[in-house]
Amino acid sequence: MDGRNFILKGDICYSKTRTSLATAEQSFLVCAEGKSAGVFSQVSQIPLPYRAFPYIDHTGKLIIPGLVDLHIHAPQFAFRSLGMDLELLDWLETRAFPEEAKYQDTGYALRAYTALVKDLQQGPNTRICLFGTVHVPATLLLMELLENSGLVCMAGKVNMDRNSPDTLREQDAACSVAATREWLERCGTYTRCKPILTPRFIPSCTDELLRGLSEIQQQYNLPLQSHLSENLKEIAWVQALCPQSSCYGDAYTRFNLFGGPVPTIMAHCVYSGNEEIALMQRQGVHVAHCPQSNMNLSSGIAPVRRYLEAGLSVGLGSDVAGGAHTSMFRAMTDAIGVSKLRRCTGTGAEAPLTLEEVFYLGTQGGGSFFGQVGSFEAGYEFDALVMEDPHPVPPFPLSLRERLERIVGCSDERDILEKYVQGILLPR
Amino acid sequence: MDGRNFILKGDICYSKTRTSLATAEQSFLVCAEGKSAGVFSQVSQIPLPYRAFPYIDHTGKLIIPGLVDLHIHAPQFAFRSLGMDLELLDWLETRAFPEEAKYQDTGYALRAYTALVKDLQQGPNTRICLFGTVHVPATLLLMELLENSGLVCMAGKVNMDRNSPDTLREQDAACSVAATREWLERCGTYTRCKPILTPRFIPSCTDELLRGLSEIQQQYNLPLQSHLSENLKEIAWVQALCPQSSCYGDAYTRFNLFGGPVPTIMAHCVYSGNEEIALMQRQGVHVAHCPQSNMNLSSGIAPVRRYLEAGLSVGLGSDVAGGAHTSMFRAMTDAIGVSKLRRCTGTGAEAPLTLEEVFYLGTQGGGSFFGQVGSFEAGYEFDALVMEDPHPVPPFPLSLRERLERIVGCSDERDILEKYVQGILLPR
Repeated sequence: MDGRNFILKGDICYSKTRTSLATAEQSFLVCAEGKSAGVFSQVSQIPLPYRAFPYIDHTGKLIIPGLVDLHIHAPQFAFRSLGMDLELLDWLETRAFPEEAKYQDTGYALRAYTALVKDLQQGPNTRICLFGTVHVPATLLLMELLENSGLVCMAGKVNMDRNSPDTLREQDAACSVAATREWLERCGTYTRCKPILTPRFIPSCTDELLRGLSEIQQQYNLPLQSHLSENLKEIAWVQALCPQSSCYGDAYTRFNLFGGPVPTIMAHCVYSGNEEIALMQRQGVHVAHCPQSNMNLSSGIAPVRRYLEAGLSVGLGSDVAGGAHTSMFRAMTDAIGVSKLRRCTGTGAEAPLTLEEVFYLGTQGGGSFFGQVGSFEAGYEFDALVMEDPHPVPPFPLSLRERLERIVGCSDERDILEKYVQGILLPR
Repeated sequence: MDGRNFILKGDICYSKTRTSLATAEQSFLVCAEGKSAGVFSQVSQIPLPYRAFPYIDHTGKLIIPGLVDLHIHAPQFAFRSLGMDLELLDWLETRAFPEEAKYQDTGYALRAYTALVKDLQQGPNTRICLFGTVHVPATLLLMELLENSGLVCMAGKVNMDRNSPDTLREQDAACSVAATREWLERCGTYTRCKPILTPRFIPSCTDELLRGLSEIQQQYNLPLQSHLSENLKEIAWVQALCPQSSCYGDAYTRFNLFGGPVPTIMAHCVYSGNEEIALMQRQGVHVAHCPQSNMNLSSGIAPVRRYLEAGLSVGLGSDVAGGAHTSMFRAMTDAIGVSKLRRCTGTGAEAPLTLEEVFYLGTQGGGSFFGQVGSFEAGYEFDALVMEDPHPVPPFPLSLRERLERIVGCSDERDILEKYVQGILLPR
């Protein structure tokens, strides 16, 4: 037994299923060796081995799982909410790529990434998958900061050897592959921030590079993150670059970079059709739904309910700086909002997402990419937030579900009293 | 000359036209007798009568006009972000009406309205048009609290004598008219919170009531606020209730309650067609665009650019609790976001709204309902916010326009250092 053994008392809320909440008022959540040992309504129900654990009384506070951001671009945090008047490809060229090129300078990277990591520590997310830049030193620096933050993350050195400015593009596939190997050798000591293979997207990566990354993936058994079917012009471009592929997802599949044995996140999936959905389903690809980014960059509204009904694993992503906000509470409300607009504008016939569903997406849905994460069922890793009801509290009684609804809709980081990751209380 | 004579130094930003910003770094904004006397880049340019005014140095801070919320339901603030799974008519029946009925109890109203007014004081809005409830005492209480808040507001006792629950509906048209007259007599002493006639919407008001309100309007020369073309089922219902009307706006026009000599706000206008637009244009009706509410209640996306191009006066509204946030900065970003989705889903072909345009809508656009409000052009009433750049500040230089973009996109009330209304500094 280590120090990560304790009991939190409070009003506990987590996803029971994709469409239902477990709510337990004035109950006891047991953390044993950094994992949940379950939720109990009475002290007498707590199994004997745990009953003597130190006890922290959060009576009247909400206790929910930590949130999971499956998709954020670390070097874009600095310019979030700036320059949102362009669509994806022009925005990359004009805004994102020139900014990312600056991370060649590790001094710049240190300033910018320090600010990002501080924001992430203060916010409600406990697990995060991040894109870095092509630069090995800056990406290692990012991972070092994340490692020390207490968060559990996956971060990737980005690969891009074509269709990007000289200031950012790697010289050729061999250089990109060699840099990736160097990065992997040098980040091996981190225990909380793990590497994830990060080819930017098909337009940025030559076939030779993708083949090289596939070899690396097999050698190191690495998870992978990339982009998929975000924007109609991007999709047409991929089709032109890979005329033999039957869909965008197939362009990755030809290099064995589309799920299968290792966990894979594809961000956006605004326009995935039946074939791509079937491919994702077969290959166990995780979808990172990024509703705010898809609005800000005029990409569209992803048919999330279709993916859920097809049995895909779906989580949420901030996609900063396509999105301007790192909190997954904001992503939850945005996901509900755009799903309503999808239906009422006649863009899709699916029913809008519910509070229960988006809460699931932002906790257990995304958490599944990290393993047993995002729930308080026994055996899940102990990521938890202790939250205050956002002020001012209404002058009428609220159910626990309603209190959760208010936290999702109008809390901010000031309402987070405690944040645990793998059973460890982070400093605030 | 009274005490409202001073000069603010800082980085000043306001709308020059509907589509362009005036930006003046390290400049001087003169307040003379509660009105702007203009912006000057050098002390030597400040006209002599003002040059000796007390001088407040906000070097490095942004100074922008106060924001204007043209549409908020005061009694709905308490349940903002709750119960957002319904569309308008069901939501009114299930959520809004039962809550509003509680304001019969002035003790309850005092608790709830005190929390609302504190939120409004802390936030960036300086001018607000509010719906109260049908209850005279609660509405007077709301006005008393607003009067003492330092904000400049218009608030209305709501009229509704049909199609609403017994607990809320007024007994008949005569009772509603009598209560309105009582309310008007009793709120005559307020100088900063003025009454505004507030028939809820056509479905809640009998013809007899609307005729009575029209008489009151002519007698007192009162402005008016109501709802228009928010939701397709609502529009069909209005058509069924008023089969002789050619459009929803025409249903108000038949009672002389659709603009003309007195200022009139119609909230939402999601589905106003050509005839209704022409009617609004002719009658000078002000549109309150409420993008978040229209998303939350699955109403749709208003064609704001069409209204602007038709020459309508448009401002923004939070429509709490259809919307969950009182800040007009949030309404600005939502207005841009949904305008992008309107286009990229093919719902409308209009170009998305720009930062310049939504900033105009949230300041001068809405401000025009209050007169010369929402700008720093000489002669405008002096409503101003002194704002900090939201932290963390990016590690690269920003133009003043970009700093404004960040304030709109990611500031909160903590970034507001000072708030002036009509030249008076509000306590924070």
